[in-house]
Amino acid sequence: MQCYAFLVHKIPVGVLGASGYAGRELCALIAAHPVFDLAFAAANAQRGQSIRARGHDITFIAPEDVNLEDAEMVFSALPHGTSLEWVCRARDAGARVVDLSADLRPGNGANETVPYGLTELTREQIGDARVVANPGCYPTAILLALAPLVTAGLALPGATISVSAASGVTGAGFTPKPDLMFAEVVEDFRAYAIGNEHRHLPEMNTVIRSLGGDHDIVFTPHLLPVARGILATIIVPVVDSLENPASVWREAYEGEPFIEIVDEPPALRDVVHRNVVMIHARRLANLREPALLVLAAIDNLMKGAAGQAIQNANLMAGLDETMGLPA
Amino acid sequence: MQCYAFLVHKIPVGVLGASGYAGRELCALIAAHPVFDLAFAAANAQRGQSIRARGHDITFIAPEDVNLEDAEMVFSALPHGTSLEWVCRARDAGARVVDLSADLRPGNGANETVPYGLTELTREQIGDARVVANPGCYPTAILLALAPLVTAGLALPGATISVSAASGVTGAGFTPKPDLMFAEVVEDFRAYAIGNEHRHLPEMNTVIRSLGGDHDIVFTPHLLPVARGILATIIVPVVDSLENPASVWREAYEGEPFIEIVDEPPALRDVVHRNVVMIHARRLANLREPALLVLAAIDNLMKGAAGQAIQNANLMAGLDETMGLPA
Amino acid sequence: MQCYAFLVHKIPVGVLGASGYAGRELCALIAAHPVFDLAFAAANAQRGQSIRARGHDITFIAPEDVNLEDAEMVFSALPHGTSLEWVCRARDAGARVVDLSADLRPGNGANETVPYGLTELTREQIGDARVVANPGCYPTAILLALAPLVTAGLALPGATISVSAASGVTGAGFTPKPDLMFAEVVEDFRAYAIGNEHRHLPEMNTVIRSLGGDHDIVFTPHLLPVARGILATIIVPVVDSLENPASVWREAYEGEPFIEIVDEPPALRDVVHRNVVMIHARRLANLREPALLVLAAIDNLMKGAAGQAIQNANLMAGLDETMGLPA
Amino acid sequence: MQCYAFLVHKIPVGVLGASGYAGRELCALIAAHPVFDLAFAAANAQRGQSIRARGHDITFIAPEDVNLEDAEMVFSALPHGTSLEWVCRARDAGARVVDLSADLRPGNGANETVPYGLTELTREQIGDARVVANPGCYPTAILLALAPLVTAGLALPGATISVSAASGVTGAGFTPKPDLMFAEVVEDFRAYAIGNEHRHLPEMNTVIRSLGGDHDIVFTPHLLPVARGILATIIVPVVDSLENPASVWREAYEGEPFIEIVDEPPALRDVVHRNVVMIHARRLANLREPALLVLAAIDNLMKGAAGQAIQNANLMAGLDETMGLPA
Repeated sequence: MQCYAFLVHKIPVGVLGASGYAGRELCALIAAHPVFDLAFAAANAQRGQSIRARGHDITFIAPEDVNLEDAEMVFSALPHGTSLEWVCRARDAGARVVDLSADLRPGNGANETVPYGLTELTREQIGDARVVANPGCYPTAILLALAPLVTAGLALPGATISVSAASGVTGAGFTPKPDLMFAEVVEDFRAYAIGNEHRHLPEMNTVIRSLGGDHDIVFTPHLLPVARGILATIIVPVVDSLENPASVWREAYEGEPFIEIVDEPPALRDVVHRNVVMIHARRLANLREPALLVLAAIDNLMKGAAGQAIQNANLMAGLDETMGLPA
Repeated sequence: MQCYAFLVHKIPVGVLGASGYAGRELCALIAAHPVFDLAFAAANAQRGQSIRARGHDITFIAPEDVNLEDAEMVFSALPHGTSLEWVCRARDAGARVVDLSADLRPGNGANETVPYGLTELTREQIGDARVVANPGCYPTAILLALAPLVTAGLALPGATISVSAASGVTGAGFTPKPDLMFAEVVEDFRAYAIGNEHRHLPEMNTVIRSLGGDHDIVFTPHLLPVARGILATIIVPVVDSLENPASVWREAYEGEPFIEIVDEPPALRDVVHRNVVMIHARRLANLREPALLVLAAIDNLMKGAAGQAIQNANLMAGLDETMGLPA
Repeated sequence: MQCYAFLVHKIPVGVLGASGYAGRELCALIAAHPVFDLAFAAANAQRGQSIRARGHDITFIAPEDVNLEDAEMVFSALPHGTSLEWVCRARDAGARVVDLSADLRPGNGANETVPYGLTELTREQIGDARVVANPGCYPTAILLALAPLVTAGLALPGATISVSAASGVTGAGFTPKPDLMFAEVVEDFRAYAIGNEHRHLPEMNTVIRSLGGDHDIVFTPHLLPVARGILATIIVPVVDSLENPASVWREAYEGEPFIEIVDEPPALRDVVHRNVVMIHARRLANLREPALLVLAAIDNLMKGAAGQAIQNANLMAGLDETMGLPA
Repeated sequence: MQCYAFLVHKIPVGVLGASGYAGRELCALIAAHPVFDLAFAAANAQRGQSIRARGHDITFIAPEDVNLEDAEMVFSALPHGTSLEWVCRARDAGARVVDLSADLRPGNGANETVPYGLTELTREQIGDARVVANPGCYPTAILLALAPLVTAGLALPGATISVSAASGVTGAGFTPKPDLMFAEVVEDFRAYAIGNEHRHLPEMNTVIRSLGGDHDIVFTPHLLPVARGILATIIVPVVDSLENPASVWREAYEGEPFIEIVDEPPALRDVVHRNVVMIHARRLANLREPALLVLAAIDNLMKGAAGQAIQNANLMAGLDETMGLPA
């Protein structure tokens, strides 16, 4: 026999850019959140339209009709370049802000520095932050996979780390483009943003440096014929042939509610609709120089975007970090 | 105004292991081939069953009912381990043989050495061969992508080459397994045979050595939710920062009917149902040590299996290498 | 400010045939259920294997190791023909039973009559039942769509009702078969069990008769290249040209927690992973005799199997009917 | 030993609206056609862009740069409403025209009457036509399925014929729309244009009348998560319980190169990339009034659009009807 009792004080929150994939996911998570209460969901192109999220009808209002004072917490899922202005407005109106765009992320050239919301690595900076820069989807998977090795000095100094990653099409956004239509994507697979020039690269390099690493990353993203999910396949030269590589991650992430170190290679289906990163590490055979394979899987819209944003907002609001998040 | 005239002498050919994906593709290609004529299609489990291939009905006979003398050319698409015995029988019966299994491929421990049918690299050995070992699907894409760099001495000696590759599910064969069912594969993506222990690795390493390379390959295959196609994403450290990397491949493969060097990253849809490999090479930015990205795409059942087998058989029969093959 | 307080007395439940798709879904729902507690999950072929359901690890035990006395409630997701024997054993051991097989469904020739668990139509029979026959997936969608029309005498007496339905592949079960492999199903669509001889037809006809209807049903199922979901497209001749057909369903199902009458044609994505049926009805234009289009969508594993089983079990246990079910 | 010899006089042909799915398929078929030679491929939005079709690079020119006199035959794959003007221009410029739009199809309200290019039913009108109206994709499948029954007087007079059909997304065109994006279509299925008001209905009704039928058609189309293919599932009340229904179609279509009467229900994968319709007919059991199930499958871009257009153009040019068409 168990007994539960709790009191709930609701916190009004707003979403800017609510009609994209991350924005919709935010609305759905907020609709199911025990404390956050949706004050407004703004979307320019889809103003006036309604969607149904977890049994709640949500109507998008025009950005100019938003009253930023209505929200104690604002999530901006606006496009890169557009977001920063609204983040400042929301902050000036007194709200605390989680910015899901790249505008304030490290390595993106912003004049202003705000805490980077890769929660497991920067948790102590989040609670008091006025504004948090929510990480990119690929960096979330890749940095959580690399951080324990880099921090422990086990990744070979100066080495090149090869990252081949694949993402579902929601990672490319909700704006209709010929290349993202069903008949173009089904039964296909291709690399994009090739040549190591993806806009997530500076974000990753900056964070690796901040962790004490001096490694070069080669990052090749691919477009998968699935709706959701990212799998990063990472080859890391290491200083020594580790007996039990998984222990590095198990120790670094002990007690983390949203990180799972697994014994088998993670599949997208293990992580979609969940706010987790699943990591698998293994020694590579048949090589003269020791190296590890590290696999990391996330849902690009959850731990890679809206889920992590809620995770950060929970901390900012003094709530349990896991509140309202499917683990 | 054009005028065509030609004489056709038909060559009877047989297929062993005809009911798998590679076997069926072989039967379909043979049905449409101007010279090869299907003498028998043997399949153990599906004996007595019929399929329709390019407008021809093909009935599988039991292996014990095969009269190997009926065929001048035999294709074995039997499972690894089973194939070698039948290859020997067919050869002893006077047929020339293309073995699509791994049994006689380099690095697979066979006592006997037969020419390796990676046609563009070994063409001069194929014409007179009694038996040819048709390459594996992954090695076809990866070795054709790497050979020009290795041969030219441009791949950094001793370096580790990182290969992340993804294949459609026909690469896993036609035998029903839970992991290959639609509901398990759709919306999923995962690595398999991880840890650099895939059975294609020795084949690739042996050929790289034979081309004068001393490189280590890290090979991580993934299962794609598509029926056909392989994309290999390859990171190669190089001795120098090449101005125009594509020219290395263009020169090495000049005039090759089944190799296309392309300016954009190849997609699976560019190559499926075609007997080609599409290769794209590009310098990698943002690295201290020079390296190239090489992408190679094939149809695993065509250039990666049945198509290349026909290509080899054409040479063995003294026909035009491209006969009956969709380019 | 809200305050919640409740007491939980756990009820031990068991699952037979736990390794199939319906069985796994049951285990996952039970793992997340506030009151039901998984006492055992039995599976013959996969004995000893473990799966992860909603954060709980579930290990399948062999049927012969099941102690039926351990459970107050047993769900049988065993194959048709096999289930009945176990249902009787569980009942004789004192458990109450929800049988997801066809063995005890109306029209299936069983000697014994037990309540039919199409909850919204037979709710008053469920609470006290020792054994409930959980409906088939197609009949759930089709009968919930037809019942209001038939009961109200609006479906033209003696008329033929045409039902074209399509199901995701999980409807065909988890046993590997060549026709259900990814490469065979992707990019395909086909009718099956054609000629009006599907084994769900007697179940539907019997229930229609019990509702006072004398209609003939033509039922043509199709296999969709999706994992989950059923859409039934139903053409019903009616006695009169109804002004507002949707009102028939709205009145019949007023207050039903798991039935949604919608203004737009329902899509599979509206219902998957939810224990609902979504129904849309509309007059057909351009016809001399009045007829309606009725569309009904369900998740075949939820409202079409495991979800409805939990719904029935909740009633049998005296719990809120919606407990533990995603609406 | 066989000997072939033939002379080829090339016929210049042009494509208007070449950048849509039907237009691209036309370009690809023309590129592989032994006699037709692509004089121009016009596309408004994609002017200047190039695609690769069967090994030929095709560059789209702007419509205003088209010299209609360059082509003896013009295919218009322009949108409905836009096409008619260009069809007239091309005809006035001396070309013969196949119009793939609905503008001149029966039942679409055009003042002008041109032969309807459902080739197997109207073959004798095609050869001398200046302009041919190529049928819609759904009507092609459905009318070829129904014609033999209607013509023979076997479909019950006055009866309602129920047609549930499903199409791949290329049937909805190449213009990007949110509903056609991969992440919206995958794992989904829905009806559209419901209520018996699809714009193909008048075309079907008009042709049924012209064949002597007085039947009402209820037509419910659905959107499938596949790129190509249409399956029509048709329930037809018949005057009598036919012993061998398939014989009706076998006799009506004896010798037809592009119609296959099959013993098993046809699947999309049997027909994609082929210019055929596959038809299966079967008596329905468990009904008081006799009725048949007729299934018809086509590739919507081949027999349902570009393939049939080439079939008609072959006849108009005095060529073998099958020339250049994959059967």
